[in-house]
Amino acid sequence: MVPTVLDTTTISAVDTRIAAVPGFRAAAVSAGIRKSGRLDMALIAADGPCAAAGVFTTNCVRAAPVLLDIAHLKQNPAGIRAVVVNSGVANACTGQRGVEDAAETARLVAGALGCAAQDVFVMSTGVIGVTLPMEKIGAGVGMLAAGLEPDGWAGASRAIMTTDTMTKTAAVRVTTPGGVYTVAGIAKGSGMIAPYMATMLAVIATDAAIDAPGLQTALSAANGVSFNQIVVDGDMSTNDTVIALASGASGVNVQTGADREAFGAALTAVCTALARDIVLDGEGVTKFITLHVTGAPDAASARQVAMTIATSPLVKTAFFGCDANWGRILAAAGRAGVAVNPDRLDLWFAAGEAPEDAGLQLVASGTPTDYREQDAAAIMQEKAITVRLDLGLGDAVSTVWTCDLSHDYVSINGDYRS
Amino acid sequence: MVPTVLDTTTISAVDTRIAAVPGFRAAAVSAGIRKSGRLDMALIAADGPCAAAGVFTTNCVRAAPVLLDIAHLKQNPAGIRAVVVNSGVANACTGQRGVEDAAETARLVAGALGCAAQDVFVMSTGVIGVTLPMEKIGAGVGMLAAGLEPDGWAGASRAIMTTDTMTKTAAVRVTTPGGVYTVAGIAKGSGMIAPYMATMLAVIATDAAIDAPGLQTALSAANGVSFNQIVVDGDMSTNDTVIALASGASGVNVQTGADREAFGAALTAVCTALARDIVLDGEGVTKFITLHVTGAPDAASARQVAMTIATSPLVKTAFFGCDANWGRILAAAGRAGVAVNPDRLDLWFAAGEAPEDAGLQLVASGTPTDYREQDAAAIMQEKAITVRLDLGLGDAVSTVWTCDLSHDYVSINGDYRS
Repeated sequence: MVPTVLDTTTISAVDTRIAAVPGFRAAAVSAGIRKSGRLDMALIAADGPCAAAGVFTTNCVRAAPVLLDIAHLKQNPAGIRAVVVNSGVANACTGQRGVEDAAETARLVAGALGCAAQDVFVMSTGVIGVTLPMEKIGAGVGMLAAGLEPDGWAGASRAIMTTDTMTKTAAVRVTTPGGVYTVAGIAKGSGMIAPYMATMLAVIATDAAIDAPGLQTALSAANGVSFNQIVVDGDMSTNDTVIALASGASGVNVQTGADREAFGAALTAVCTALARDIVLDGEGVTKFITLHVTGAPDAASARQVAMTIATSPLVKTAFFGCDANWGRILAAAGRAGVAVNPDRLDLWFAAGEAPEDAGLQLVASGTPTDYREQDAAAIMQEKAITVRLDLGLGDAVSTVWTCDLSHDYVSINGDYRS
Repeated sequence: MVPTVLDTTTISAVDTRIAAVPGFRAAAVSAGIRKSGRLDMALIAADGPCAAAGVFTTNCVRAAPVLLDIAHLKQNPAGIRAVVVNSGVANACTGQRGVEDAAETARLVAGALGCAAQDVFVMSTGVIGVTLPMEKIGAGVGMLAAGLEPDGWAGASRAIMTTDTMTKTAAVRVTTPGGVYTVAGIAKGSGMIAPYMATMLAVIATDAAIDAPGLQTALSAANGVSFNQIVVDGDMSTNDTVIALASGASGVNVQTGADREAFGAALTAVCTALARDIVLDGEGVTKFITLHVTGAPDAASARQVAMTIATSPLVKTAFFGCDANWGRILAAAGRAGVAVNPDRLDLWFAAGEAPEDAGLQLVASGTPTDYREQDAAAIMQEKAITVRLDLGLGDAVSTVWTCDLSHDYVSINGDYRS
């Protein structure tokens, strides 16, 4: 996360606080949706219409707000004014009633802000199969609209949490010859799995000027190397949504060329910081694993092998137990559905977050090297560990950030309602 | 497991002991491969050449004994004389040395029994990446050959255990107009995951007369509805092997017609009993889940949805926590890679092992019914639970036997070497 310089443009290091993003205000309230009385609704509002982009869960079972947002993004990609979020209830598996409730939520926000319903995105996270308490939502929207402040982001980042144990915010400032702009975002998610499918949500705001198709391209690219690169346990949610809004308030046009490149880098830095925070705050996580699969015949195969290893309970429990049980990694690779050649597999472990070419080699050509067990054991004691598996079949690579599988994970997900 | 009658042929209920199978002898010894000094080698020997069949792991990373057995089965399907098994060392990821050690093990057994090396199957289960201690193997083979007894099956079933907490044996007796024969088997496996990839092995013996192609067809069919129908956590091993041997000693020819049908039913009964025992003895298991996916467009889709649900950590931890958290089941179905229509999903829970049409309906057309939470909670308290998810898309079905994900699972797999 060191500053990056692209010719005359400077991108700051990621700041985990968001002071403000010109052109946006935010608010958070306790609307009584969650029993605990904690913050449970947030509103991000733009002073004028924004270019918008979104990426959504690919689960066939999608929550009503996801369906609404996809429709609004299609109808109105250049005129979005607000994102409203509630925690506590996911509004998923709620049928036609859920669809109507999501639409009504958008209408309520539009009424309070003086815009059209299709200018509003709605996000929900929490219990599946429960309908939104619309009276509380209505009262909450009124309070949110009255409480909007330029520095309201911190409250919003708290209001969208479910089992998260920490807020997830990130901002970078980009200084260009044409001016300065900010890219900032908030996210929630404690792994892809959480009680009642509390899921991954993120809202990213910038005052850079870019049109909606450009923003979508940049967001999809950033998403591919950030949120799509993390896995806690492979359970994909019904509500995953990442929204980006560009107000243009900075007057810095990032539509093309080096400015576009810098904007993409800044957006990627923010998405990456938020994505990593989600793994670090994963349910019961004790280890942060960087997994490089290299030497794959193509990118899809590399990702498939990486995801199979990253979701293997056998591999994840070995990391929890600080056990350098590399046979489990090779066995997971072997069942990934890719034509792996066992005689070409090379494996390295390294402490911390290491590049692809570092570490202790445990396996060469499919059989163990003469590494010393205590060297492998020392690496396994680290909080952050890098694993590299080379398939010896080509040049494609995939990197995934993942975590271990611990007793606390079972407790959080097994004992939640009892 | 009630007796089945096919016209004039009777298949007994499954007996969890194996008295003897005419034409076979068995032995078990402690060869010192496992530190604990417990039984760690077994030999099943036939009095004469047997028709043989086998099913093997589809993992690309396959252990040396698997490669040897596949070769011997291809070269010599009608002349197999013995199966030798060691626990403690899997002889996987051991390269050329591992291949030579597996072949030498077969030669040692052949020398002791007076047959050819290609008449012998070899199985190994235990630590990956460790080579076989060939001196101990050699001494063990000698002791095994000297100790063969018709009633040696119980010892053999103990010698092949790794983290298993109980032996797994099953036998049925088939009475036909032409005579009586036995189908009996032993298995090991504590789920597909176990410390160091200790894996699923089974040896099934019969004194029925059937040729090798017929036996392979029958075994593949039985395997499809037994061992292939169980999942503990989705981790496929490097060593999974099921071998069937037919001595023909009973003189009952089961090659065709009703006799073939009865033989298939008997073989399926034995495989099913062994497979269910593996789930029941799964690592840390507290619940036995029967999962029916119905209304699928085709069998492959039904199985894919069932396997995705059965391997979902979110679903499995909810069962461990006795939480009727049905949204997790729908969400897992939605990410299975099948074009599920969320508005057509129906879901039932039932206590015990229920048929497809029984139970409490929790979801109708994708949204919750007005079921009472206490009724669902009562079902979740059971040790055995049946779940049925109907996709509403066709007539295909898949049934999978699986289990929950508990604290003990994490302990067993995380803390094994520490």
